[in-house]
Amino acid sequence: MRAQSNLPAQSAERQQSVTAARLLAAAGELMTERNSIDISLSELAKKSGINAALVKYHFGSKDGLLMALLARDSRSEIENLDYLMRQPISPTEKLKLHIAGIIKAYHRFPYLNRLIHRMLYESSDKSAKEVSRFFAKPVFEIQRKLLEQGVEAGEFRKVDPMMFYISLIGACDHLFHGRTAMSPTLGGGVTDEVRRRYVAHMTELICGGILKASPAKNGKTAK
Amino acid sequence: MRAQSNLPAQSAERQQSVTAARLLAAAGELMTERNSIDISLSELAKKSGINAALVKYHFGSKDGLLMALLARDSRSEIENLDYLMRQPISPTEKLKLHIAGIIKAYHRFPYLNRLIHRMLYESSDKSAKEVSRFFAKPVFEIQRKLLEQGVEAGEFRKVDPMMFYISLIGACDHLFHGRTAMSPTLGGGVTDEVRRRYVAHMTELICGGILKASPAKNGKTAK
Repeated sequence: MRAQSNLPAQSAERQQSVTAARLLAAAGELMTERNSIDISLSELAKKSGINAALVKYHFGSKDGLLMALLARDSRSEIENLDYLMRQPISPTEKLKLHIAGIIKAYHRFPYLNRLIHRMLYESSDKSAKEVSRFFAKPVFEIQRKLLEQGVEAGEFRKVDPMMFYISLIGACDHLFHGRTAMSPTLGGGVTDEVRRRYVAHMTELICGGILKASPAKNGKTAK
Repeated sequence: MRAQSNLPAQSAERQQSVTAARLLAAAGELMTERNSIDISLSELAKKSGINAALVKYHFGSKDGLLMALLARDSRSEIENLDYLMRQPISPTEKLKLHIAGIIKAYHRFPYLNRLIHRMLYESSDKSAKEVSRFFAKPVFEIQRKLLEQGVEAGEFRKVDPMMFYISLIGACDHLFHGRTAMSPTLGGGVTDEVRRRYVAHMTELICGGILKASPAKNGKTAK
């Protein structure tokens, strides 16, 4: 019952064949199993049992495959976010669920973070623009509206949406980025327990900061 | 008048010759000019006017040069941080200066961020351990003590120091990382103005969060 968001290129993407969808599913599984986005088209053909020529036909190159996978997963996340924003809950509640949602998305698609980094920082300008179109811009726009709603509702102070986007995405991303994720200080990587603690930490930090809350901010009335 | 911090390997590093120091200075300048950390040892020899054999002698490989540069700049930043922590100011004031300091360090050494990413995520485990020893661990330890002081002083609520480290470094890092820095939404990259706005944003966000401060939190007394 989720309304379709109006992402550009969505209708074209939706028409991709069942074969392409199966290939993407296999690619996602392979990346998760391997804990790496470095998979070849021939490995994918082997994993999926689908002819290598068809892999080539559907995605052209490895970058084409990565971009298609990113588009699929971004679309699913943006739809979730869109759905969340239409719920009859306060901006503060939406923000909390959004923070948890970003961290869950990175957890659900362990390769998403690496894919975004690869496409944004190591690929062509064209790839970077695509990532921006699929992922960064829609997330930024939704956050911008949420921040406006929060201010209008008298719940949020006014913040610069671009600064907010960079700080929130940067902080969430960093837990999963590269060797941070394997850091021995985290005691064995980003476990479910670490992820839950990070959701709690980020929610409290973004909502209330580190300074000790006054009684009024805790929802009690100061005498 | 700054006391020397007890960083491991510091004494050995301190003994490096004047030639090595000149080479590092030239490497930093070259990276800043180029806006890239991709410089070769022969380009460095040309820029510095120092014989290529000496470049090889002092740093062995390009990774050796990058690590030496990272060690030099990390040391300087850790010394600043160490100095800051010994000032007779409140934990809240220290935290604010620390946030501004991280962002300023990335600005002052535009290649620092890229160096850390390269060494942490694309190099060997050995490089990652070195970066951790030079940069991540000392910063984490200083933050941990600051957080303790803040709680003892009744200024901070209790936060997990590892979660805090990841979120603060991740958020500050993200402004300068890869194409974020060139994003057209930032209107021409990370200018002095953008940097100042980000310092203000991060300070407010980390200290007080986004929820509208109660009168008591603003330092006024609620009636």
